[in-house]
Amino acid sequence: MHIRRPRLKKLRRNLTLKPPGTAPETLVADPMALAPKVRAIGYGQRAGSPPMHEEIDNATIEQIRDLRERMPQVWVNVDGLGDAELVRRIGELFGLHKLALEDVLSTHQRAKVDQFGDHLFIVLREPLPPEGSDRIVAGNVQTSHFDTDQVSMFLGKNFLVSFQEKYGDCLGPVRDRIRQYRGKVVSAGPDYLAYSIIDAIVDAYFPVLEYFGEKLDELEDEAVTNPSRYTVHTIHALKRELLTVRRAIWPAREAINLLVRDESHLIQTETRIYIRDVYDHMVQLIDVLENYRELGSDLMDIFLSSQSNKLNEVMKVLTVIATIFMPLSFIVGIWGMNFDPDSGPLNMPELRWKYGYLMAWCIILATSGTMLTLFWRRGWIGPGKWKS
Amino acid sequence: MHIRRPRLKKLRRNLTLKPPGTAPETLVADPMALAPKVRAIGYGQRAGSPPMHEEIDNATIEQIRDLRERMPQVWVNVDGLGDAELVRRIGELFGLHKLALEDVLSTHQRAKVDQFGDHLFIVLREPLPPEGSDRIVAGNVQTSHFDTDQVSMFLGKNFLVSFQEKYGDCLGPVRDRIRQYRGKVVSAGPDYLAYSIIDAIVDAYFPVLEYFGEKLDELEDEAVTNPSRYTVHTIHALKRELLTVRRAIWPAREAINLLVRDESHLIQTETRIYIRDVYDHMVQLIDVLENYRELGSDLMDIFLSSQSNKLNEVMKVLTVIATIFMPLSFIVGIWGMNFDPDSGPLNMPELRWKYGYLMAWCIILATSGTMLTLFWRRGWIGPGKWKS
Amino acid sequence: MHIRRPRLKKLRRNLTLKPPGTAPETLVADPMALAPKVRAIGYGQRAGSPPMHEEIDNATIEQIRDLRERMPQVWVNVDGLGDAELVRRIGELFGLHKLALEDVLSTHQRAKVDQFGDHLFIVLREPLPPEGSDRIVAGNVQTSHFDTDQVSMFLGKNFLVSFQEKYGDCLGPVRDRIRQYRGKVVSAGPDYLAYSIIDAIVDAYFPVLEYFGEKLDELEDEAVTNPSRYTVHTIHALKRELLTVRRAIWPAREAINLLVRDESHLIQTETRIYIRDVYDHMVQLIDVLENYRELGSDLMDIFLSSQSNKLNEVMKVLTVIATIFMPLSFIVGIWGMNFDPDSGPLNMPELRWKYGYLMAWCIILATSGTMLTLFWRRGWIGPGKWKS
Amino acid sequence: MHIRRPRLKKLRRNLTLKPPGTAPETLVADPMALAPKVRAIGYGQRAGSPPMHEEIDNATIEQIRDLRERMPQVWVNVDGLGDAELVRRIGELFGLHKLALEDVLSTHQRAKVDQFGDHLFIVLREPLPPEGSDRIVAGNVQTSHFDTDQVSMFLGKNFLVSFQEKYGDCLGPVRDRIRQYRGKVVSAGPDYLAYSIIDAIVDAYFPVLEYFGEKLDELEDEAVTNPSRYTVHTIHALKRELLTVRRAIWPAREAINLLVRDESHLIQTETRIYIRDVYDHMVQLIDVLENYRELGSDLMDIFLSSQSNKLNEVMKVLTVIATIFMPLSFIVGIWGMNFDPDSGPLNMPELRWKYGYLMAWCIILATSGTMLTLFWRRGWIGPGKWKS
Amino acid sequence: MHIRRPRLKKLRRNLTLKPPGTAPETLVADPMALAPKVRAIGYGQRAGSPPMHEEIDNATIEQIRDLRERMPQVWVNVDGLGDAELVRRIGELFGLHKLALEDVLSTHQRAKVDQFGDHLFIVLREPLPPEGSDRIVAGNVQTSHFDTDQVSMFLGKNFLVSFQEKYGDCLGPVRDRIRQYRGKVVSAGPDYLAYSIIDAIVDAYFPVLEYFGEKLDELEDEAVTNPSRYTVHTIHALKRELLTVRRAIWPAREAINLLVRDESHLIQTETRIYIRDVYDHMVQLIDVLENYRELGSDLMDIFLSSQSNKLNEVMKVLTVIATIFMPLSFIVGIWGMNFDPDSGPLNMPELRWKYGYLMAWCIILATSGTMLTLFWRRGWIGPGKWKS
Repeated sequence: MHIRRPRLKKLRRNLTLKPPGTAPETLVADPMALAPKVRAIGYGQRAGSPPMHEEIDNATIEQIRDLRERMPQVWVNVDGLGDAELVRRIGELFGLHKLALEDVLSTHQRAKVDQFGDHLFIVLREPLPPEGSDRIVAGNVQTSHFDTDQVSMFLGKNFLVSFQEKYGDCLGPVRDRIRQYRGKVVSAGPDYLAYSIIDAIVDAYFPVLEYFGEKLDELEDEAVTNPSRYTVHTIHALKRELLTVRRAIWPAREAINLLVRDESHLIQTETRIYIRDVYDHMVQLIDVLENYRELGSDLMDIFLSSQSNKLNEVMKVLTVIATIFMPLSFIVGIWGMNFDPDSGPLNMPELRWKYGYLMAWCIILATSGTMLTLFWRRGWIGPGKWKS
Repeated sequence: MHIRRPRLKKLRRNLTLKPPGTAPETLVADPMALAPKVRAIGYGQRAGSPPMHEEIDNATIEQIRDLRERMPQVWVNVDGLGDAELVRRIGELFGLHKLALEDVLSTHQRAKVDQFGDHLFIVLREPLPPEGSDRIVAGNVQTSHFDTDQVSMFLGKNFLVSFQEKYGDCLGPVRDRIRQYRGKVVSAGPDYLAYSIIDAIVDAYFPVLEYFGEKLDELEDEAVTNPSRYTVHTIHALKRELLTVRRAIWPAREAINLLVRDESHLIQTETRIYIRDVYDHMVQLIDVLENYRELGSDLMDIFLSSQSNKLNEVMKVLTVIATIFMPLSFIVGIWGMNFDPDSGPLNMPELRWKYGYLMAWCIILATSGTMLTLFWRRGWIGPGKWKS
Repeated sequence: MHIRRPRLKKLRRNLTLKPPGTAPETLVADPMALAPKVRAIGYGQRAGSPPMHEEIDNATIEQIRDLRERMPQVWVNVDGLGDAELVRRIGELFGLHKLALEDVLSTHQRAKVDQFGDHLFIVLREPLPPEGSDRIVAGNVQTSHFDTDQVSMFLGKNFLVSFQEKYGDCLGPVRDRIRQYRGKVVSAGPDYLAYSIIDAIVDAYFPVLEYFGEKLDELEDEAVTNPSRYTVHTIHALKRELLTVRRAIWPAREAINLLVRDESHLIQTETRIYIRDVYDHMVQLIDVLENYRELGSDLMDIFLSSQSNKLNEVMKVLTVIATIFMPLSFIVGIWGMNFDPDSGPLNMPELRWKYGYLMAWCIILATSGTMLTLFWRRGWIGPGKWKS
Repeated sequence: MHIRRPRLKKLRRNLTLKPPGTAPETLVADPMALAPKVRAIGYGQRAGSPPMHEEIDNATIEQIRDLRERMPQVWVNVDGLGDAELVRRIGELFGLHKLALEDVLSTHQRAKVDQFGDHLFIVLREPLPPEGSDRIVAGNVQTSHFDTDQVSMFLGKNFLVSFQEKYGDCLGPVRDRIRQYRGKVVSAGPDYLAYSIIDAIVDAYFPVLEYFGEKLDELEDEAVTNPSRYTVHTIHALKRELLTVRRAIWPAREAINLLVRDESHLIQTETRIYIRDVYDHMVQLIDVLENYRELGSDLMDIFLSSQSNKLNEVMKVLTVIATIFMPLSFIVGIWGMNFDPDSGPLNMPELRWKYGYLMAWCIILATSGTMLTLFWRRGWIGPGKWKS
Repeated sequence: MHIRRPRLKKLRRNLTLKPPGTAPETLVADPMALAPKVRAIGYGQRAGSPPMHEEIDNATIEQIRDLRERMPQVWVNVDGLGDAELVRRIGELFGLHKLALEDVLSTHQRAKVDQFGDHLFIVLREPLPPEGSDRIVAGNVQTSHFDTDQVSMFLGKNFLVSFQEKYGDCLGPVRDRIRQYRGKVVSAGPDYLAYSIIDAIVDAYFPVLEYFGEKLDELEDEAVTNPSRYTVHTIHALKRELLTVRRAIWPAREAINLLVRDESHLIQTETRIYIRDVYDHMVQLIDVLENYRELGSDLMDIFLSSQSNKLNEVMKVLTVIATIFMPLSFIVGIWGMNFDPDSGPLNMPELRWKYGYLMAWCIILATSGTMLTLFWRRGWIGPGKWKS
């Protein structure tokens, strides 16, 4: 059986994108990062006018500047962080802080909310669907690597700029709501748009947790009915994945809580009620996650107890066999002795008895019968004992 | 023996009722939910008048609106959440916030208290009686699944609207007190009614904990006197159920504490003393629960020690047998050798001694007697050792 | 050996005295409760007068009312909670809150301090002496059930009303100090009396902890020198008892801390210094208790290591025996073969050697001697190894 | 080997010096306490004058009163708490609170700081040097009992009164600095003297921790290279000692922190910087201690793994022996059968072959050689395996 | 195999540089400390002037004083703490507090920030690169000792004085930025320089964590595929090293957080944003570290399970061998009995059957075949079982 263990390297991926000692505010793109795709959406509703919406794919800086002037608010989304210069220019256009832009490019940020003068910098980690991810193969149950995509958002008075590591995201429904003028998102400010994105990201964690819940189920089945030496590795791998999920969720909860209690003017009181709702979802997620982590720890106990149970079974087999055949070997050994019956009437006269051999067999059968009965009574042998 | 393990699926039941990305405030009923039964109770006591009480089963929206106008305060209770439209219309009638109504329909909420403008939204989880629940069958001791029913309440100036997942609840005594004008509930405001409901729900947890306490008792008995390979699963199942109880109780404690320290005008100072009393009950519950959880963890230790004790016993049996019969086999093997006594006076002369065979038996009996005495002294064999 | 395990039922004794849904403020006496004995003590010192003291055993409500009028302050103590009506009438006389009276009757309260208008409601749990309690019998070391008696106190401007579950308490010395006009208790207010009672209760915990400390000592002795299969149960029972002590002490610490920081006018600044002193004692108690709990957990480790050590010893015995006698059996088996020396000069000529048998014995002794030397060197056999 | 285990009694030494119920403020000396030695030091520096210093050994109350009048500030140090009356009179002279004096006499106080009117009451525990203490003897590594001496200080406007349990302390250098007018201690107030004493006490903990650090080293050596059944007890004893150190250090940290943040006029701002420095040392101590405690827990893991490793080794020896000699015994048993070669050509003709015996030996050697090769390849036997 | 275990002595290196009781503010250099190298850098930018920069290697006190007068701000860096007098004189020149200077010399400080009048005292610990450090050799995986260098900084209005234990540091890039007038460091105040140094130190921890991450990977590989008795020691050593890293990082996080919330005038608002960024890095570090620590604990579980698995395997081998050969030995023992066929027709007639020996072999083969089939079906033998 082939073991592909979860790689710790995953965990510390980009820990050191820049060599230690590099000046701060230096924007360096990860050479492995994808080429950026820029999508600018201008939208909004001026008092007394119908809602507006305009969308530019692969927008240039000039198009964005133009859109920003024409529309009440703009949402610029960049997929792929391979071009540091583009990030710098977008930052310049919207007046974004360089330290924040540096964080955008180093994709190992924890979820957080920082205030920089007139804009909020929000970092969240969007979970990637477990189905398409790398698989951890060890034993019968296979799990996936949990992986996340860093979503950085700048929320200003009339704009929202978002950066994502990879192409493809869970924000399609949000865009559709803008395009179709559904819900409040068009009429409300960019804070509501930020809320919608955060809500979509938090919702995307639920299937991930369902996935790991199912895996816990399967693993418990395996640990109970058919534990192999690989089971412990799968349990370990699953615990490690849950640790990674935890590492993504806990800071997000904190960050969202900061938004609820936000003191800046950027998030309106009305929107705050919605963010409180997302916060509730977050707490629910954590609740389920912590349950799973505790169950994961119990799995190890169950597995060790299964292992110890198996040892007990093996030892019982050995003891039953030894206890039956050792006395028997002794018995047949007795009559294998060469004492000379001719030397005296007490010297193994049974060897010449007419039914001596029969007697020997009777003793053998009686002895083993007694032993078997004893073991049966103690429950060491019997139906079901050999099925494992 | 058949094992029906607790299902993890229970835990994550409705985690994802709506697909990720659905717009907030969308009211979608769970297709598995029950059809709603609406019961409206108008009651109260105007200064100088006798207490009033009117009850309408299967009330329509119009009847509720009418009742609300005629009576000082109304209590609308909805059992079954299968009709999103009904929930929306009741929400409209009482001016309830849509985000809260969304929470009413997704029945996996943690207990919480949220303030929305002029009304409080209170979610609690009512325990279902353990006797009627699904059973977890593994080994001799059987436990029940702990399950809860979500109770959502809206507390307004002169109304209380409550929603429950299932038919049948623990609020009968509260209704009776209104019908029979007993206690303060008729003369006091809806905050006292909310208190009465919360009190009834909290009280319903005590039998649940008693039930699990008894199960812990039985399991300790099993782990001590008759541990089987299924015991570990029952312990695990019980720990998991206690985890679920904990998941229901802790947030409720927090929520009730929020009500005690409530800053809104909806809960009067006098009622707050009563809620503090419920809070004390809650703390007591948690106290007992945490004790049970700690005892549950100790059970695993006891079980593992029992298992290890059994291994020791098995090994002792094996060692006793081997230590007695291996030397004996060696002894009889000696005289089974074929050295020719004719070749010299030192070549196995004992084979021809008159009492050679008797001597052999004496040596055999002496050897085994010595061994048995040694084992007896070390306490490896003796009365009670074979009873297990 | 007979095992009487600690009963979990103890823990949840009165969890549900009243059926769920009973109206609050209903006073119901436990049918198992003792008949009440009322003792009223009037005492105090008016400015310029000598200290006064008057004591009425089995006082009636009228006598108490009368005493209250005549004396500066009264202390009414009720032993036994079997009469709900009496409790109600005493409550009426002193204007006590009904919710608090309900708590008095349900004797499973945690220690707490609640303020009700003009009086404080203080609940503490007085430890019962371990010597007279039920015993937990398992193995050689026997421990007692830790049990407590609920002491409820109402502290008003000029009265203290106390209720206790059982007859007999640790307050004798306090009464004596009033009777003999010793200390400040007569001249000070009822807050100092409350302090004296709390001090006496807290002091009563020290012998309890000493008792469990000694038991820990004995158990460690047993686990080290003579661990039996019952040891684990006694360790478990002791840990459970310490858990119960903890459950009694921690809330008391919190409650006393509330009294130290009390904002009501009922406890004078001077008395607060004394209560701070009791609080220090409480912290000391907790300190010792937490030490004991940690040592109790370590005991389990020691026990498991003892068990594993014993298995090692058993396996060594088996291995020594097998390693010595298996080769010997093989050796004697060789010369038990029936190859015919007549068929050729290489066919077991040794059987006919003059000193063949002697040679066989030399080989047997040399082999076993070598084995024994090896085991001696590895320290598997030797003095002290068979003593256990 | 003789085991002298650490005594739990140590831990609860004076838990109950006075019987429960004794009136507070009763000064009772421990009958085992030493006779007091009083040393009064008057010192200080009046503006414009040279520093003064006068020291009286075995000072009487009158001499102290006189010294206090003549000198700017006095330091009265009492070694030995055997005389309650002396303590009462010193308390009277300096106006010390009786509750504090009671704490001085009961030498089981936790470190603490209490304010009583115009003086501060400071309790610390001075560690006794581990070299001279009782020894815990179990196995090869021996450790000492950690023991402490209670130092109680009263810090007033112009005096410092200190009480110690035992003769001899770590304050010699402080006295020398006063005598030789070195450092600030003479010119500064009594708060600086208090700081100097606290600093000396905290510094005295460092060698204690070094001592236990070395013991951890030795124990790890023992657990790795030569674990015996006594090792677990020494580990347990060491963990218990570290627990006792912890019990002494943590409250001291809290107390010193209280002094840093002290709001009374007794500690000057300048001195507070020095006390903050001591606080830093304290935090360092705790840091090291917590490290040691964690390493102590890991030691148990290492030990258990060593034990389990030893079991594996023993089982391998048994399996190797059994696997080699069981087949051999079977082989020689075959030719020990008595089938009559005369009865037919297929009846054990090999017994009469010319090289039959040689063939048997070849088979025996080939079988055992194959087995040994297999075990060698699996790494079960080989160089270093028998060295343990 | 040679074991060089991590030395605990490392941990408590300089715990007691000065004997207990030494007066505070005494500057004593560690006799093992290196001779100091002083490098003074004057730099800055006056309004309207070009940026300035002047650097003096091995600067004297006079040169520093002179430089300080001529340049807007100076950075004095001292490598090597072997000269207490030099430290004292530098302290005098810049008016540094003596308690802080004492801390500079005792190189076992935790990271901290203290305010002394007009300057801040900042202590951090710079990690040394793991590659060049002492190695821990036990088993196959080798790790390094994690070691740190104490960096003490005094931040004043126009100066920064830094002290380091060893020659060579991670501040080269910072110096280069000053020399080449790159970044803000020349134009900003000394607070920005302090930030740059802190940033460089924090960045230096990332490679250290990567190193230990790789070691965890290797160790997991070893524990899974090839656990030896040394594996537990390497796991223990690694956990200990992570503990040391933790001991360095956690206080640094606290200290940096203090700088972010700093109330003094020494750190400008603008710089605070940068320090908040370093704080974020610190939190990330801790995040990764705590993950590693949890994975390290899991490694122990995996190892113990591997060990227990090995025992199971050994026992299975023993049981298979015993179960096959014990019955066979019994069978051949039967026909080794010497019952005389001449005494009766039932006395071992098979010995004289024509195909008796063949029959015996058939029974032997059938028995062992049955056993092997049974074991094969239970999965105890088969392909892959002997590969381990």
